[in-house]
Amino acid sequence: MSPFTGSARTTDAWQHIRVSRRDGIATVTLARPDRLNALTFEAYADLRDLLAELSRERSVRALVLGGEGRGFCSGGDVEEIIGATLAMDTGRLLDFNRMTGQVVRAIRECPFPVIAAVHGVAAGAGAVLALAADFRIADPSARFAFLFTKVGLSGGDMGAAYLLPRVVGLGHATRLLMLGEPVRAPEAERIGLLSELAEEGRADTAAHVLAQRLATGPALALAQTKALLTAELDMPLGAAVEMDAATQALLMNSADYAEFHAAFTEKRSPKWQGK
Amino acid sequence: MSPFTGSARTTDAWQHIRVSRRDGIATVTLARPDRLNALTFEAYADLRDLLAELSRERSVRALVLGGEGRGFCSGGDVEEIIGATLAMDTGRLLDFNRMTGQVVRAIRECPFPVIAAVHGVAAGAGAVLALAADFRIADPSARFAFLFTKVGLSGGDMGAAYLLPRVVGLGHATRLLMLGEPVRAPEAERIGLLSELAEEGRADTAAHVLAQRLATGPALALAQTKALLTAELDMPLGAAVEMDAATQALLMNSADYAEFHAAFTEKRSPKWQGK
Amino acid sequence: MSPFTGSARTTDAWQHIRVSRRDGIATVTLARPDRLNALTFEAYADLRDLLAELSRERSVRALVLGGEGRGFCSGGDVEEIIGATLAMDTGRLLDFNRMTGQVVRAIRECPFPVIAAVHGVAAGAGAVLALAADFRIADPSARFAFLFTKVGLSGGDMGAAYLLPRVVGLGHATRLLMLGEPVRAPEAERIGLLSELAEEGRADTAAHVLAQRLATGPALALAQTKALLTAELDMPLGAAVEMDAATQALLMNSADYAEFHAAFTEKRSPKWQGK
Repeated sequence: MSPFTGSARTTDAWQHIRVSRRDGIATVTLARPDRLNALTFEAYADLRDLLAELSRERSVRALVLGGEGRGFCSGGDVEEIIGATLAMDTGRLLDFNRMTGQVVRAIRECPFPVIAAVHGVAAGAGAVLALAADFRIADPSARFAFLFTKVGLSGGDMGAAYLLPRVVGLGHATRLLMLGEPVRAPEAERIGLLSELAEEGRADTAAHVLAQRLATGPALALAQTKALLTAELDMPLGAAVEMDAATQALLMNSADYAEFHAAFTEKRSPKWQGK
Repeated sequence: MSPFTGSARTTDAWQHIRVSRRDGIATVTLARPDRLNALTFEAYADLRDLLAELSRERSVRALVLGGEGRGFCSGGDVEEIIGATLAMDTGRLLDFNRMTGQVVRAIRECPFPVIAAVHGVAAGAGAVLALAADFRIADPSARFAFLFTKVGLSGGDMGAAYLLPRVVGLGHATRLLMLGEPVRAPEAERIGLLSELAEEGRADTAAHVLAQRLATGPALALAQTKALLTAELDMPLGAAVEMDAATQALLMNSADYAEFHAAFTEKRSPKWQGK
Repeated sequence: MSPFTGSARTTDAWQHIRVSRRDGIATVTLARPDRLNALTFEAYADLRDLLAELSRERSVRALVLGGEGRGFCSGGDVEEIIGATLAMDTGRLLDFNRMTGQVVRAIRECPFPVIAAVHGVAAGAGAVLALAADFRIADPSARFAFLFTKVGLSGGDMGAAYLLPRVVGLGHATRLLMLGEPVRAPEAERIGLLSELAEEGRADTAAHVLAQRLATGPALALAQTKALLTAELDMPLGAAVEMDAATQALLMNSADYAEFHAAFTEKRSPKWQGK
């Protein structure tokens, strides 16, 4: 339990996504396989709230996001989201779209790495959830489709027009967001969208292997690496090197840094404590 | 005709570039084939003014930029531009270089996608015009040469030092802008400079096929996708997701979004109206 | 000698790095081959001071950075840096980490191109020195390891979390900085980390060939190309095209630009003067 806890209670049960935790790894599964894990308002809200709670707690050291059944996530549900938004007033529409953006910001800003394990379809908001993750491990069956223009919306959804050019470059990003065509695993790998192409049926396993490795690593160093990667996209070089300097000075006072040196001297592996 | 029209007249005839329009597609051809379509002051001015007029009108939904004859564009004419600038005073030099930058900004900021159809040489300013486009469709004969340093100028011309690192990464961009060597189609494809490598002799056709597809698509959604891609290169993540949220809330009130839902429900293709 | 010289003396002898100069090319060699050229406090300080002095002088037109012996640079010395920092107070730690950042800024901001010739290991700070260079020419034996998290520190060190996403994209950069795994030459080439893959044993030679080409080129145009590439990473498009316009207007008054035109007219090669 974090000492920075007030009156707010944590959630007892996540009803719209499946969440399990073991050995510092949170596994979050989109689990509406009959709808290709289409997202609902409640699923977005659960993702937003879960990431906020886990970020405060500091007991999770890596998170794996996957989908049950035939694919990863088909995006916003055509009836439960698209149909419903057609009846909403402007304020409500803004609330909804801000919520989806908050999920992406939470993925980028939480203090642990997020690994998307993608097989089959990752479409619309599903593609952006994967894009926002730190690592994308894909099954050969994976196909990413930023298909927003195909439903009459902007390809810039949930930060996609910010993130995708920074991952695959402006040329590929323009093509993907304007046309909404599926990008299959080999092309995704070629243009830099994948962190790892897994063997068939092994994306989840590979994601958990990586999660375990990260969860047993130097958690504070990893959290700061992620924080700096996220922050320095939005900073000039001069500010970035200053931020790096302050961060390293801070971490040079950490137990893990001293532990590295002790382990190296004693010719053994370091025992990371994450502090 | 846009309701936001005042006293200003539109241009009757474009004398320094060839312009045709059909079915919402503007085709702009650099047409001085005896000079490999070298640009003149007047051709730049026509490109600047044409893009401004088309942006106000809203009747064009896609633009194809190509070159007549053996290549796309050899850049600024050695006599009519380089020779002429040697005799100019500082204020005039600044005016000229601002005009070329305005062409690039106009390509990035116009509310319709721009497709460069490139065969043969795209050199100097010609390479930057292609770089500024949303899509680059290349013939196997295409070669891009950012050859500014070869004439004693900066590789950062017309936004090239801004755009190229965001398309191909800083490493390749440095090499291309510092050395000015030609990048042939296979390398251009490998480093992310191409949207599509066409079959021999088919770049113009492929560009028009794409233009037609875009022109019959959801114009407002496509325009906003382009606008967000351009704007979010210059924004932090937090501002980008807020801009996305406002944009999607806006588009969720559009006719095209409702049309998508109706078409989906009725199991037919949507009829996009661009509003 | 620059006219902008005051009372400050230049350094007589660089004791912690090897520096030689010939024909406008500075060759800087990390030369502690028994320690795989591990960096010390003094080596960092020499790099910082050398780059500052060379930047003021304007006699150097290209710099090659290489390593003696089995590899390029193994990063900060485990005893002389990691061990020593464990005993430092916070202010001292900040001074150290600011110094390393100043080296990277100096590489990015010096008015001549920097070419890293990399063979064998480029690890930790060694990988970042190479990353900060304008060109990376690698031997097939080269392997880059941003291994900061392996010693309990942040992967964002010396601007790595700023530079790496801008060179190889955010996805690859996250993987490299979070995991610290070595990237071998073929992968480095594939993801855009290399400017050139040299033949076995030829990276130094290839780097000097390139340096000579750059040193005999239009120095002012090359310096401004580098300055704009560096500055425009941190600028919006509108400001970038304005900066380009002012720069080109300036260079259109340069002797080298006139020389290009004269040489072109006389059908000979230009003789660049760098002014």
